[in-house]
Amino acid sequence: MKVIIAKRAGFCFGVKRAVDIAFEEAKKKKIGVVTLGPIIHNPQVVGQLDHNGVKTVEDINHINKHETETVIIRTHGIPIDDMKELDSSGFEVIDATCPFVKKAQQYAKLLKDEGYKVVILGDREHPEVKGIMSYAGDDVLVVKGVEDYRPMRGRVGIIVQTTKQVSVLKDLVSVAVEHALELKVYNTICNSTALRLKETEQLAAKVDMMLIVGGKNSANTTRLASFSASLGVPTHHVETCDEIQEAWFDGMETIGITAGASTPDWIIDQVEKRIFDIGGSVGDGTGERGT
Amino acid sequence: MKVIIAKRAGFCFGVKRAVDIAFEEAKKKKIGVVTLGPIIHNPQVVGQLDHNGVKTVEDINHINKHETETVIIRTHGIPIDDMKELDSSGFEVIDATCPFVKKAQQYAKLLKDEGYKVVILGDREHPEVKGIMSYAGDDVLVVKGVEDYRPMRGRVGIIVQTTKQVSVLKDLVSVAVEHALELKVYNTICNSTALRLKETEQLAAKVDMMLIVGGKNSANTTRLASFSASLGVPTHHVETCDEIQEAWFDGMETIGITAGASTPDWIIDQVEKRIFDIGGSVGDGTGERGT
Repeated sequence: MKVIIAKRAGFCFGVKRAVDIAFEEAKKKKIGVVTLGPIIHNPQVVGQLDHNGVKTVEDINHINKHETETVIIRTHGIPIDDMKELDSSGFEVIDATCPFVKKAQQYAKLLKDEGYKVVILGDREHPEVKGIMSYAGDDVLVVKGVEDYRPMRGRVGIIVQTTKQVSVLKDLVSVAVEHALELKVYNTICNSTALRLKETEQLAAKVDMMLIVGGKNSANTTRLASFSASLGVPTHHVETCDEIQEAWFDGMETIGITAGASTPDWIIDQVEKRIFDIGGSVGDGTGERGT
Repeated sequence: MKVIIAKRAGFCFGVKRAVDIAFEEAKKKKIGVVTLGPIIHNPQVVGQLDHNGVKTVEDINHINKHETETVIIRTHGIPIDDMKELDSSGFEVIDATCPFVKKAQQYAKLLKDEGYKVVILGDREHPEVKGIMSYAGDDVLVVKGVEDYRPMRGRVGIIVQTTKQVSVLKDLVSVAVEHALELKVYNTICNSTALRLKETEQLAAKVDMMLIVGGKNSANTTRLASFSASLGVPTHHVETCDEIQEAWFDGMETIGITAGASTPDWIIDQVEKRIFDIGGSVGDGTGERGT
């Protein structure tokens, strides 16, 4: 069995930066450091941080004021009101918001300040979108796709959740431009997401099965999995190597592996090793990665 | 033979305004009035004006300074340098530029001033586009459709020739948004154009043949004709009733008529009369129009 691991499997720039920041803080202080919400959408990384003394609090009101010195802001960012409250709270605040998400927040504010009707293309339940929304004013419209959009006249401003697929944005602007007098779009889709999807498409075309590795709570990993499956190749989404079933590999000759932006290398390595144990050729696999 | 005339056949708001202005001037003064370029793209209307003393000059340098008092600016507008030269020339300048075209010129300037790379979706040989271009700076890109567009990063600003089809704009923005960091679009397509095309589609679906009436030099009339033909219905583009051939009507039961934005009612009426003479039922035709 040959294993091919996608070049861009795993951590993107923003996630790597946030995780590095969190582990750096863990090294500096053994206690008193929390992240506001899980730093990234990967339970194993969050577990490792917890093990190193960096706890996750789900809500700003759950921060124990007596035991906490430093609050790290998650890679997805937080709403503006939470940010203001933190700033005035006396905690040391370390902002690990992905710089691309930060940009999207600033563009949302800019569009609002310039008087546009702000539309966010994204999932309103996703923490990144909740953060961006808070910068866009009360009159913001959040749409998952063009099907949720109601044609608007006047001045329409669009921003996008950084992990959205560009095809969904293309569909939306194509509809929005018909009725709007003026349309301003910040394409805040992260290039890394687009490249990862493109690479998945290329990889899926030359393998018998795809394994998508990453948090079940990770939107971009889940989408990688559903995208891969939509291409007609058998696809399994696993969070760790423990979920892998030997029977999946019956009659398979070539296996493709990719991973979401929040999946650490060591989990990908374990998946690769597990396939090797089942009968994969590790040489073929590692040879392709990163080249 | 039943004849159905489209509700919106003929003069749009901007053309009616320009023609009214020109005839008003013709009434006021018998000599010394010229239009810079044909006031609209309809040879018969231009001929009528000429007959009433309002001559057309093709170029600003062709204006006879001794014989001219008043210069009327055509509905399509003129380049900014010509406007400046006219303003300092001592002529009385009457601006019959369509207010929607004027808006497009202003938006072009705004996009340029705001530092966008300006893209005009339109025909670079059309006087309207030549005018708009002059407001967009030296670095403007004019594209007829998405096939001429070269993907650009950075900040891209798009404006549209007022008579373009919205589907062409939709295709362009859908491609442009993928690479641009920021995309600002002024949808300067005139609603009247869109409605006229939509109405043509509806009319073409219920008739055996379409007659499109208007100047052969009129972009919007020519496009109406090619659009109608593309729908699979036999289509003839005629400038006046004189071009109508009796043989076209063999075996036809229902005839649809529409006309470009620069076609005067009296030419449409003559076309209708000609069909009546051939065997059309004028009652059915006029009954549908304007209701």
